[in-house]
Amino acid sequence: MAKGDEVSNKQVIFRDYITGFPKETDMVLATGTIRLKVPDGSKAILVKNLYLSCDPYMRSCMTKLDRPNYSPSFTPGSPIRGMGVAKVLDSDHPNFKEGELVWGMIRWEEYSLITTPDNLQFKIEDTDVPLSYYTGLLGFPGLSAYVGFYELCSPKKGENVFISAASGAVGQLVGQFAKITGCYVAGSAGSKEKVDLSKSKFGFDAAFNYKEEHDLDAALKRYFPEGIDIYFENVGGKMLDAVLLNMRDRGRISACGMISQYNLEKHEGVHNMFCLVTKQVRMEGFLVSSYTHLYPKFFDFVMPLIKQGKINYVEDTVEDLVNAPGALIGLFTGRNVGKQVVVVARE
Amino acid sequence: MAKGDEVSNKQVIFRDYITGFPKETDMVLATGTIRLKVPDGSKAILVKNLYLSCDPYMRSCMTKLDRPNYSPSFTPGSPIRGMGVAKVLDSDHPNFKEGELVWGMIRWEEYSLITTPDNLQFKIEDTDVPLSYYTGLLGFPGLSAYVGFYELCSPKKGENVFISAASGAVGQLVGQFAKITGCYVAGSAGSKEKVDLSKSKFGFDAAFNYKEEHDLDAALKRYFPEGIDIYFENVGGKMLDAVLLNMRDRGRISACGMISQYNLEKHEGVHNMFCLVTKQVRMEGFLVSSYTHLYPKFFDFVMPLIKQGKINYVEDTVEDLVNAPGALIGLFTGRNVGKQVVVVARE
Repeated sequence: MAKGDEVSNKQVIFRDYITGFPKETDMVLATGTIRLKVPDGSKAILVKNLYLSCDPYMRSCMTKLDRPNYSPSFTPGSPIRGMGVAKVLDSDHPNFKEGELVWGMIRWEEYSLITTPDNLQFKIEDTDVPLSYYTGLLGFPGLSAYVGFYELCSPKKGENVFISAASGAVGQLVGQFAKITGCYVAGSAGSKEKVDLSKSKFGFDAAFNYKEEHDLDAALKRYFPEGIDIYFENVGGKMLDAVLLNMRDRGRISACGMISQYNLEKHEGVHNMFCLVTKQVRMEGFLVSSYTHLYPKFFDFVMPLIKQGKINYVEDTVEDLVNAPGALIGLFTGRNVGKQVVVVARE
Repeated sequence: MAKGDEVSNKQVIFRDYITGFPKETDMVLATGTIRLKVPDGSKAILVKNLYLSCDPYMRSCMTKLDRPNYSPSFTPGSPIRGMGVAKVLDSDHPNFKEGELVWGMIRWEEYSLITTPDNLQFKIEDTDVPLSYYTGLLGFPGLSAYVGFYELCSPKKGENVFISAASGAVGQLVGQFAKITGCYVAGSAGSKEKVDLSKSKFGFDAAFNYKEEHDLDAALKRYFPEGIDIYFENVGGKMLDAVLLNMRDRGRISACGMISQYNLEKHEGVHNMFCLVTKQVRMEGFLVSSYTHLYPKFFDFVMPLIKQGKINYVEDTVEDLVNAPGALIGLFTGRNVGKQVVVVARE
């Protein structure tokens, strides 16, 4: 087709705000049309979306909440919004040229008109790696692992590191960063496959299936007889409560997410907060979007490791927008193994 | 009496480990005898105890717990152990001389033989202030306020500071430090008298009686329409839960204690932990005993303020060891107004 043609545009539309677990039917496939040209003088770009990122935080966008600091809610009747990789088909913006690749905030549709491309759009310069990595390893999950582990926790060689959701988009990287730093690393995950992967592929010293442990405190004591120096928090709830009992003096907790809580009407109570006092623990939450200034530092750190084969990254890929709703929902049942990616198109 | 005489020694003996609220009968008055001379070559000191400090953490010493990082449990059948001010009557230790005044860890009795006086015994050099201040304003409560506010929270002029247990031994100082720093300061306390005191004597911009608020979240929104930058945590439980909802982006929580939880078999659940993530809040617990190296810095900061009349300090004083058990118990019902001190002797 030629530039300027009007083409059909498959979309995944957010139906309406929800409570509880999200369902595939909370998203609706639709087909619109789009003209593959940006209006003159608009400073917009027109992109073809290639890879979509499914991330746990997106659940909170499905609830209508007033939270100025966090990710805004989706708009009912409009496409799902998320991170992804796209190719510029047309541009009226001085920083973007036709044919360039970008990653950042896009919509769940085949083609998108992005009217403010300066906002959360990063140019892809290095294409020696799979492009999908820019949804994960080289995107916000990678930066989250880097910021949460190195910036917030100041790890030292020999420290004991625990990571929940160990094989997830972020956890698998934190584990490998911790091993590179010379730490002892154990993780939790929700299936034997994920536990095995954590050890065999990501180099965790130990891992366990939290669903098979009726006493998380006892499980942690088994893997951390001397306690935990650093906890990378992805799940919240009961796991956090058990971790607090097992932190060491001056331990650090980096809170990246709490996926076990996102579908609950009322979040579970955490009973062991006093451990923060008795063990002098520092717990800090963060939003990766506040740390984009560190992306170049992260990139320079991680890219050589990737090229030397010192970092593995496992993705769980589904093809076609039609499978995107199921892929997103799957995060909350733990269906995905590794970073969940949706391929809209390969180029 | 002469040095070396054997004299009677009134003591407050810890009866046995407890659960739930402590009662006066968990402590027993007893009278022993003590020789007012240290054994030759013992490196010990013999002190006359003057002022005893009643502190919330002492509740946890009444339960048998294995917690290497926190204050050790009391020994059933032995005197209560706590901070206090004492006078050296005899010394075999090179650092201490007869007639000197010290503050630090002592026992609840008229006279104590301290066999390791290097451990938590600080010499009192400045006696231009009431000696009892070394149990509070110039003791660990003062250092707690300083460390928890300045070191952990890095306050800036114009920030919004909330303090629970606002009129307590620590809270009343944090409030005054925050005002000196140019912050807006509001606090919570458990009676009209304490609320009034916080405003009239300690300069809080606002204060409220938490017992009269059925909705703590709404109360906090009333006093912090723009949210809380710094929370100085003394109480835990429901107040912490409500505070989390009202923290601002990049807020800091300094956790000094959680007195509302100490008598519960199981601590209350805190449901709003995810706010740490969405608001990028840092929460850090601390034990003042880990920060004694900052005491000189604190002392040089606070002493001029005291002498210029820029710091007020309110104590609640009871006379005689016989009233010590009631004074300690009173902390947990909120009976005391200001720092709870027991006067054993005035010199």
